[in-house]
Amino acid sequence: MAKRTSPIYIGFVIVLCASSMFVICMGEWESTWSTRAAEEAEAVAAIPCSGHGRAYLDGLILKGHEPVCECNPCYGGSDCSNLLSDCAANAGSGDPYFLEPFWMQHAASSAILVSGWHRMGYSYSDESYISQLLVEYIKKLHAIVGNAATEGRYIVFGSGSTQLLNAAVHALSPSSSVSPAKVVATAPYYPVYRAQTQFFNSRDFSYEGDTSLWKNSTDSNSRFIEFVTSPNNPDGKLNKGVLKGPNVKTIYDRAYYWPHFTAIPSPADDDLMLFTISKLTGHAGSRFGWAIIKDEAVYQTMLTYLQLNTFGVSRDAQLRALKLLDVVLEGDGKELFQFAYSTLKDRWRRLKQIISESKRFSLQNLSPQYCTFFKRVKDPSPAYAWLKCERQQDKNCYEILEAAGIIGRQGSDYSADNRYLRLSLIRSEDDFEILINKLKNLVPTEKETKDFNN
Amino acid sequence: MAKRTSPIYIGFVIVLCASSMFVICMGEWESTWSTRAAEEAEAVAAIPCSGHGRAYLDGLILKGHEPVCECNPCYGGSDCSNLLSDCAANAGSGDPYFLEPFWMQHAASSAILVSGWHRMGYSYSDESYISQLLVEYIKKLHAIVGNAATEGRYIVFGSGSTQLLNAAVHALSPSSSVSPAKVVATAPYYPVYRAQTQFFNSRDFSYEGDTSLWKNSTDSNSRFIEFVTSPNNPDGKLNKGVLKGPNVKTIYDRAYYWPHFTAIPSPADDDLMLFTISKLTGHAGSRFGWAIIKDEAVYQTMLTYLQLNTFGVSRDAQLRALKLLDVVLEGDGKELFQFAYSTLKDRWRRLKQIISESKRFSLQNLSPQYCTFFKRVKDPSPAYAWLKCERQQDKNCYEILEAAGIIGRQGSDYSADNRYLRLSLIRSEDDFEILINKLKNLVPTEKETKDFNN
Repeated sequence: MAKRTSPIYIGFVIVLCASSMFVICMGEWESTWSTRAAEEAEAVAAIPCSGHGRAYLDGLILKGHEPVCECNPCYGGSDCSNLLSDCAANAGSGDPYFLEPFWMQHAASSAILVSGWHRMGYSYSDESYISQLLVEYIKKLHAIVGNAATEGRYIVFGSGSTQLLNAAVHALSPSSSVSPAKVVATAPYYPVYRAQTQFFNSRDFSYEGDTSLWKNSTDSNSRFIEFVTSPNNPDGKLNKGVLKGPNVKTIYDRAYYWPHFTAIPSPADDDLMLFTISKLTGHAGSRFGWAIIKDEAVYQTMLTYLQLNTFGVSRDAQLRALKLLDVVLEGDGKELFQFAYSTLKDRWRRLKQIISESKRFSLQNLSPQYCTFFKRVKDPSPAYAWLKCERQQDKNCYEILEAAGIIGRQGSDYSADNRYLRLSLIRSEDDFEILINKLKNLVPTEKETKDFNN
Repeated sequence: MAKRTSPIYIGFVIVLCASSMFVICMGEWESTWSTRAAEEAEAVAAIPCSGHGRAYLDGLILKGHEPVCECNPCYGGSDCSNLLSDCAANAGSGDPYFLEPFWMQHAASSAILVSGWHRMGYSYSDESYISQLLVEYIKKLHAIVGNAATEGRYIVFGSGSTQLLNAAVHALSPSSSVSPAKVVATAPYYPVYRAQTQFFNSRDFSYEGDTSLWKNSTDSNSRFIEFVTSPNNPDGKLNKGVLKGPNVKTIYDRAYYWPHFTAIPSPADDDLMLFTISKLTGHAGSRFGWAIIKDEAVYQTMLTYLQLNTFGVSRDAQLRALKLLDVVLEGDGKELFQFAYSTLKDRWRRLKQIISESKRFSLQNLSPQYCTFFKRVKDPSPAYAWLKCERQQDKNCYEILEAAGIIGRQGSDYSADNRYLRLSLIRSEDDFEILINKLKNLVPTEKETKDFNN
């Protein structure tokens, strides 16, 4: 039907399209000052890196500003198309790239365009360092998921829950006390609790090892501060505090208490709970976490800590978190949680199938549980495998796996026996597939060896 | 010349413009997934707030997502058009809104569009928490400005220089020492040095008051850590370290060592220097600073501090800083520094003119100096006025100014006499104009009173 457009019409349309300042081009919205940023972002996103890497806005060579591909482990070449031989599977850190595909599928709704003058000042309009809108989003999310009570609670933000760990220890330590508060945790536990407490070396608290050493001593004059990770890193167990008594304060690290990683039996209602987007939306790099606190004095001290430490959390990180949670909240969170859960459930199932072939290795025991969020029984979907080397002679499980081309994290990192090893299951699909392949090689080797020995 | 476009042609063009996936619309680039973010940002930016406030992307009411104006101090109403009566001039905090107009003038080049999957992991491709590209930008900037030596130095990032202050104290304190390091500063000084050191209450260091108390004691066994702010907050002086000796370590807070605030006599070459974008680009809310360090062991300890405290600085804040510095570096930084300097020079000139009418008040004495960056003699352009109430009976300058409708910060906040008061000159134009008006009212009052008394 359309006739060939004459040069005059083309010229007319181009003038309309190119003119600036909030122009409507033939009924379509036309960007003005945001165009360059949008072009840059889309150009970088369009670099395929063969599906085995990623180009980032800030991954540019200084001169000429050429975007470069940053390849996934075991991939190389300028476009990440080369699978490197003799490359060990990276199952080490908990980089939560398993959620990256979700955000690529939600590109339009999760993008933010930050103007050059966005939030230049120190505080929000209420003079605080905390976006109250983001507080509201967080409360709404917990209400929808049913994983934490927030009503009547105080909320503070941290640069990841990392910053909040020590802020909480500080706030729970009585500063005028004769003896410093004793900070403890039950092995296997996340190593940062110990490392941080020792490094900051405060007069008000000191690290005192495993909880088990203090089970019957909490009636002393000392304040005890117990770290509880639930679900636990590394083994995914829904741990509870061990120490009881009027001198005991507990910090519940709830980083993994999301339907991705565990069935949610009921809303957590502890005195002090820590959460992070690192393991919720997968944005570890943004450094955003929050604490939910019952006691006002503890809240106030944590606020002071955050103020004197960093003047609160980057407003850019808070804006990013707000946008991400906005997407998560769409459709009452069903989409993200379904994606995350089914990804990890499948990974666990495949891992378990391989390990079940073996008598040399075992995994932590996790069973299906009823989840109040999904309103059904869920299979296990932990963030990490807590692998055990079962043979008497395999005292260092890390070395055994390393010899088979698999890099995990050794048990002693978690104050546990080196017969154990943590394998991260929340990394990219590439990393997980390489891990599975290496494990498949390892377990048949064992079978063949067994057959041969028999 | 152009004939009326027929409906058929309009329909054809709209289809072209609206089609998705990296389409070229009649020669123009067309956005796809970035459109929504760009629209949101431009819509918020287009809200005028009468020129006396700002609407932000995250300043939305929860239900309905209606952007709201956040009004400058002394302005109110839904569009910030009401000048409030009986409203005190806000000359308190150092919110660097004086640079906001610069970024609005550079809207296109300073905007960033952050995709939902930008830098989700903990580390950059080199396994660090520090963008090496940003390090290169920082070095280039210092080379252009000539305000700091960076060759052969180590650079670490902090969530503002705030975080780096304590990281530096920590790194300079010998942890195995019998006596904690003594942290000192010379009044008037930035109160966070004392507050932070005392609050974190480490076994490795303690706050020991004014430098003058220790001038002849640095040959003791104790390590001394001296904070030096240069130019100084509050009085703009180019301070140097007071204590000397093998046991003395100095932390140079160089937040204000930019051509905005001072002539640059030569590149600073201290062992440990702290900088921040808060006072360079005006983005205090982003929380981004850096340390330039000579000693490798100090650098390593600061890195560990940053890792255990927050796992580094938000990658979102690093991306933002990169983009902002990219704009600053355009034209070798001339544009930003010229804008910042001429704004503050004018403010200082106007303030000085008013105060010179008065015998009741005086300002710190600053004289024109040759600036190696501008290659000419520059008039003073300090970030703060350090006002003194000269009358014998005016012992509390804060109260005098408060009664005249001006809120500054009292001398005692800076460990100085309350005859002094800090007035912030780096806030918004609105705040500065209100301050000037209130001062004009105050000084003529004084003159009239004097005339009357005579």
